[in-house]
Amino acid sequence: MTNPTAAMLVIGDEILSGRTRDANMHYLALELSKHGVDLKEVRIVSDDAPAIETSVQALSSAYDHVFTSGGIGPTHDDITADCIARAFGRSIDVRDDARALLVEHYRKTGGELNEARLRMARIPEGAALIENPVSTAPGFTVGNVHVMAGVPSVFQAMVASVLSQLAGGAPLLSQTLRVMRGEGEIAETLSDLADAFGDLSIGCYPFQKDGVFGANVVVRGADGARVDAAVTRLARELEV
Amino acid sequence: MTNPTAAMLVIGDEILSGRTRDANMHYLALELSKHGVDLKEVRIVSDDAPAIETSVQALSSAYDHVFTSGGIGPTHDDITADCIARAFGRSIDVRDDARALLVEHYRKTGGELNEARLRMARIPEGAALIENPVSTAPGFTVGNVHVMAGVPSVFQAMVASVLSQLAGGAPLLSQTLRVMRGEGEIAETLSDLADAFGDLSIGCYPFQKDGVFGANVVVRGADGARVDAAVTRLARELEV
Repeated sequence: MTNPTAAMLVIGDEILSGRTRDANMHYLALELSKHGVDLKEVRIVSDDAPAIETSVQALSSAYDHVFTSGGIGPTHDDITADCIARAFGRSIDVRDDARALLVEHYRKTGGELNEARLRMARIPEGAALIENPVSTAPGFTVGNVHVMAGVPSVFQAMVASVLSQLAGGAPLLSQTLRVMRGEGEIAETLSDLADAFGDLSIGCYPFQKDGVFGANVVVRGADGARVDAAVTRLARELEV
Repeated sequence: MTNPTAAMLVIGDEILSGRTRDANMHYLALELSKHGVDLKEVRIVSDDAPAIETSVQALSSAYDHVFTSGGIGPTHDDITADCIARAFGRSIDVRDDARALLVEHYRKTGGELNEARLRMARIPEGAALIENPVSTAPGFTVGNVHVMAGVPSVFQAMVASVLSQLAGGAPLLSQTLRVMRGEGEIAETLSDLADAFGDLSIGCYPFQKDGVFGANVVVRGADGARVDAAVTRLARELEV
């Protein structure tokens, strides 16, 4: 059985301008690995309607799941929900169930549910809400696209909601062998290993420390015994 | 005059699996902002030939410049150079000028220029080399695509080489106003400001600190006087 595949779409000018360093991608990558979902592609686009619509359509067709982050707040540059609705040809409006959540939240906290905040209850027709235990305003799932907030604490809570309901595959196992030689010296050994273990992914990540070249060799796969066997063979051949 | 546009393509399973947190994207975003080049899109794909070829073709057609990172080392999973050659319909082989750089490097350092390391001299037909002052093995530019290493110190040195020869635009200026109110309360004011200053980009980035909601409002544009005017008006309206 192969694992389900996924892509992520990060929406936000602040990432592309370098003002903010994205944290959600790395978080999602780790969570999906644990859950047995293979993250295959990430795209980062600006707060621009055609860019969002085109990307979400392309990713939705190509992968089993798409996770988006950003652009679902109350301000004028939060256009993600409307773009997703258009990308799927669905209508969008303030929805009663989402509005009820916000009414209750602002009743408790004493804030005003003004017109701007009500934008956060705009949900495409037929979408399922994603719970937001941090700040209430919900995300939503439409088709195979899970639309979540960009604020890291909210994003993380929403990922947990989605993954609890999503069928995963075998978690990806990995072992790392640290080799204190330049990767050019071990490349042939690694290539032979990759040929012998076609079911595993074997990556080589060079580093330089105190003027000495080394590499971390990472062996990944769903079958722990195979990963063990590959790492054992590699350690023997490289006399690590 | 509008600024040139750019996209970045990050190549590497280690980013998508969550093993490594990408650092090059954030670095490039900041450098391009300073140089007046608008980074419009980033894609991260795995070490997979069709994914690399399709992405580089799409990005090369859509933007003025494409910057890639990763996959040009000596190991079996370093397939970027061959993929770029195929994407542009060019032949690729070990090239004399690139080989000469490596010969000289390993003569000095005493390493062996074996077959694996020689792979780093594979350069597509007609490409221009990008200097690598850190570890010698060059990057290259073919068409509007700049192909660079994934190791951050090398990537950064190569970006400097490329940008020194690339015509930029007006650097993007930005000012940030910190507002200690929830973004839902200031959304209408921001929307009016965005309407009045159509030449500027106005972003709102909420945060929560010690239980209090606030937002950083970032005003960006090429014309410093206009950015000043927008921030001054905003500070007055919000009584910051």
